[in-house]
Amino acid sequence: MYIRNEDTICAPATVPGTGAISVIRVSGPDALTIADKVVTCRKGKISDAAGYTIKFGTVLDESGAVLDEVLVSVFRSPHSYTGENSVEISCHASSYIASGLMNLLYAAGARAAEPGEFTQRAFLNGKMDLAQAEAVADVIASQNAAAHRIAFKQMKGGFSSELRTMRSELLELVSLMELELDFSEEEVEFADRSRLDGLLSALVDHITRLIDSFKLGNAIKNGVPVAIAGATNTGKSTLLNALLGEDRAIVSDVHGTTRDTIEEILNIDGVLFRFIDTAGLRETEEIVEKIGIERTFKKISEASIVLGMVDLTRDFESTSETVQEIIEKVDFTSQKLVFLLNKTDICELNKNVNTLNFIVSSLENKGITAGLVENESDSALEVPVLPISAKNSLGIASLRSILAASQQDLLGDSDTTLVTNQRHVQALSDSRTSLLRVRDGLASGLPTDLAAQDIREAIYHLGSIVGEISTDEVLGNIFRNFCIGK
Amino acid sequence: MYIRNEDTICAPATVPGTGAISVIRVSGPDALTIADKVVTCRKGKISDAAGYTIKFGTVLDESGAVLDEVLVSVFRSPHSYTGENSVEISCHASSYIASGLMNLLYAAGARAAEPGEFTQRAFLNGKMDLAQAEAVADVIASQNAAAHRIAFKQMKGGFSSELRTMRSELLELVSLMELELDFSEEEVEFADRSRLDGLLSALVDHITRLIDSFKLGNAIKNGVPVAIAGATNTGKSTLLNALLGEDRAIVSDVHGTTRDTIEEILNIDGVLFRFIDTAGLRETEEIVEKIGIERTFKKISEASIVLGMVDLTRDFESTSETVQEIIEKVDFTSQKLVFLLNKTDICELNKNVNTLNFIVSSLENKGITAGLVENESDSALEVPVLPISAKNSLGIASLRSILAASQQDLLGDSDTTLVTNQRHVQALSDSRTSLLRVRDGLASGLPTDLAAQDIREAIYHLGSIVGEISTDEVLGNIFRNFCIGK
Repeated sequence: MYIRNEDTICAPATVPGTGAISVIRVSGPDALTIADKVVTCRKGKISDAAGYTIKFGTVLDESGAVLDEVLVSVFRSPHSYTGENSVEISCHASSYIASGLMNLLYAAGARAAEPGEFTQRAFLNGKMDLAQAEAVADVIASQNAAAHRIAFKQMKGGFSSELRTMRSELLELVSLMELELDFSEEEVEFADRSRLDGLLSALVDHITRLIDSFKLGNAIKNGVPVAIAGATNTGKSTLLNALLGEDRAIVSDVHGTTRDTIEEILNIDGVLFRFIDTAGLRETEEIVEKIGIERTFKKISEASIVLGMVDLTRDFESTSETVQEIIEKVDFTSQKLVFLLNKTDICELNKNVNTLNFIVSSLENKGITAGLVENESDSALEVPVLPISAKNSLGIASLRSILAASQQDLLGDSDTTLVTNQRHVQALSDSRTSLLRVRDGLASGLPTDLAAQDIREAIYHLGSIVGEISTDEVLGNIFRNFCIGK
Repeated sequence: MYIRNEDTICAPATVPGTGAISVIRVSGPDALTIADKVVTCRKGKISDAAGYTIKFGTVLDESGAVLDEVLVSVFRSPHSYTGENSVEISCHASSYIASGLMNLLYAAGARAAEPGEFTQRAFLNGKMDLAQAEAVADVIASQNAAAHRIAFKQMKGGFSSELRTMRSELLELVSLMELELDFSEEEVEFADRSRLDGLLSALVDHITRLIDSFKLGNAIKNGVPVAIAGATNTGKSTLLNALLGEDRAIVSDVHGTTRDTIEEILNIDGVLFRFIDTAGLRETEEIVEKIGIERTFKKISEASIVLGMVDLTRDFESTSETVQEIIEKVDFTSQKLVFLLNKTDICELNKNVNTLNFIVSSLENKGITAGLVENESDSALEVPVLPISAKNSLGIASLRSILAASQQDLLGDSDTTLVTNQRHVQALSDSRTSLLRVRDGLASGLPTDLAAQDIREAIYHLGSIVGEISTDEVLGNIFRNFCIGK
């Protein structure tokens, strides 16, 4: 697929602001001649320069005054990021100069690039497939080693080649079936139907593994979801601040989708955690609406880790209700629960042993080990109970250790492909649905031509991931989230 | 002067953040071999590449995983910004990748550059003089055409060549004097003393013109200072907001040096104005301290334009006191005064004609024309009086026109050198002091050898501007205000 873009686009490729240099990218059939109109070089024209060379030149503004002296990096089609003729103009990092340069480029015939348009052109010109193009944005956004590794592998085509293998296996299946169809009049049955079944099962298993990898892939890319659950005013926000306090530099706010949840992202020992401060459980009847509580329960169910916050200063009755509620909502087969007994600064633990005992006995009734974390050997407990003072940051280091230790598998540098993109999960699911239909159909005597049709559908869905088939709408959705200049 | 730096420095040259690409600069004797250690190119080594070429390569992290694929621009001494061997590594704009790349460069033997250290090296290696180096920061900071033009001219050595001419004239003076000294035993008097006087006077005039240009140069670079004066609660802050409202995008906050003044910078028709909201005049006795009022008067005296705010709803007695106070403080030979009659939304002008009449008659007593601005021809008035409603933004457009028209000379693209740097003004003043001493001395029969000494001092001061003579302290003061990577 090679769609030639007739216009030439330009955009700043570096972040605006006061730095040493800014880089402006120009790409398209007229990139070199437009650069010649804007930049005057003493020695020869930019359009005569070889690829991978740099020209020094002067930029004059409309009035003929010198706007800047610049370096122009020249790239010739197809050996450029976009596959088109391109230049990168490196100027002084002044917004006055950069905007002046952009205006001169417009006047010379370039137009402002849309977000992600350079990468979109790289895709349309066959320099990369769609999954690789999507990974470019992920590479830029990566904040830790694991996320970077996954994104980079995808950008370099690791995931794409895995998909290509699956597609060629499916094409082999189709050709086997169509061979049968060709001979159907002669009532020759499929040469090796068990081989067909075997291939089909292997493919379904492979796709299922990829779909399942999304949980891990998403945790690495977007952070392990940690829900902070508990009654109101048990110190959930204070805990969040205590956790963030030690790493303020690498913290970013994430706008929660609902007003009553706050999300914060924190890097602990190389793993991203996404902390979700849920609305309080068991608030007074007047305030709490059913919908708020349900939202909290939903957040708890989506989390990989639940931090159950208990206020040591509260009376046993209300505390035990909260504890019970949290234990009921946690799925111990897939979620990690940690109880935090807060406010040790104003209430010693031994003044409220009832709560600790209640937690341990409630869990033991479910066959789950729980207990106070006092030294490293206690980390074998299924549900650690940690006394803390969020206010005075006591016990926070232990909590960080527990969190980091619980996600050690996220740090392994295995070469398994992890899916990190919701669009890919959807396409994989659609593909699997088609394949399962094939398997069921063949078992129940569905005509081979219908089964072949389903396999073609599975191939279609897999192809949509790398962009073998893509609509303007799909492309628009993908690239509008890119930054300008990429 | 050529001081060889033995170590190799590196720093990001682009603003950090999420963009398409980031550029990391490396400069020093080992720049190319360090780049070879960090970046693996398929085709040949970076250290074998010609200057002004680009190499594509792969960066591996400590664990051997791919950190990024990068483009390396190669510059060979002396044809680089610093004059040293240099590379610019263009990577994906991810803080993870950029910091990983910096760590690899450190491990390969580079050290982190200090702010402005690349430019400092360019100065030390003779690629530019000190005045040019200082202008690099000004070019980056320029926000409008006039400031950019001055900074760019200085960066390209326009100011330096003017200084060079003056220095060579002074050297000619010294040689004339020393000629006289050589023949002093023979009591031969100076061949042409009137020529000496003429040269001296021309130089003093030239330096005086340069010193005087600072007011204009500084206004262009940092904004024309406009003091907003008036009693408290006359709507000064509201006026500031009304002025800013129309141009919010290009406004920046400047931290005032004192807590009781707010400065805002606004670009009106290409001229920067720096608005200074002074503490109110005539506040109640309890609140006002003498020091606050004095500060206000100082701000008024430093301004090029004074906006006298009058609240139409106030009684005549207090208003007339404020008016009198403002008129007394303005120096009509060098400052422009504009009276603003505020709150026309709640008090029509004809309900308070006393104030208007008082303003006009007070000024006429001083021989200054004043009157209401009703149409364009009124702009000939020395002190325009403008009824406004800061709250409803009425009259604000007229005020902007008056301000812009008053500073049209800032927009002229004359080729006269304007001094924009306080350090240069100081050096020029010191130089002039020495020359005036020479002139007075010669008139009063000072021995020629002492006069020659004074001229050498004048040469020294002029030389300090371009860095012919500079100390580590001077360099430190200049470059610490640069950004990292420049």
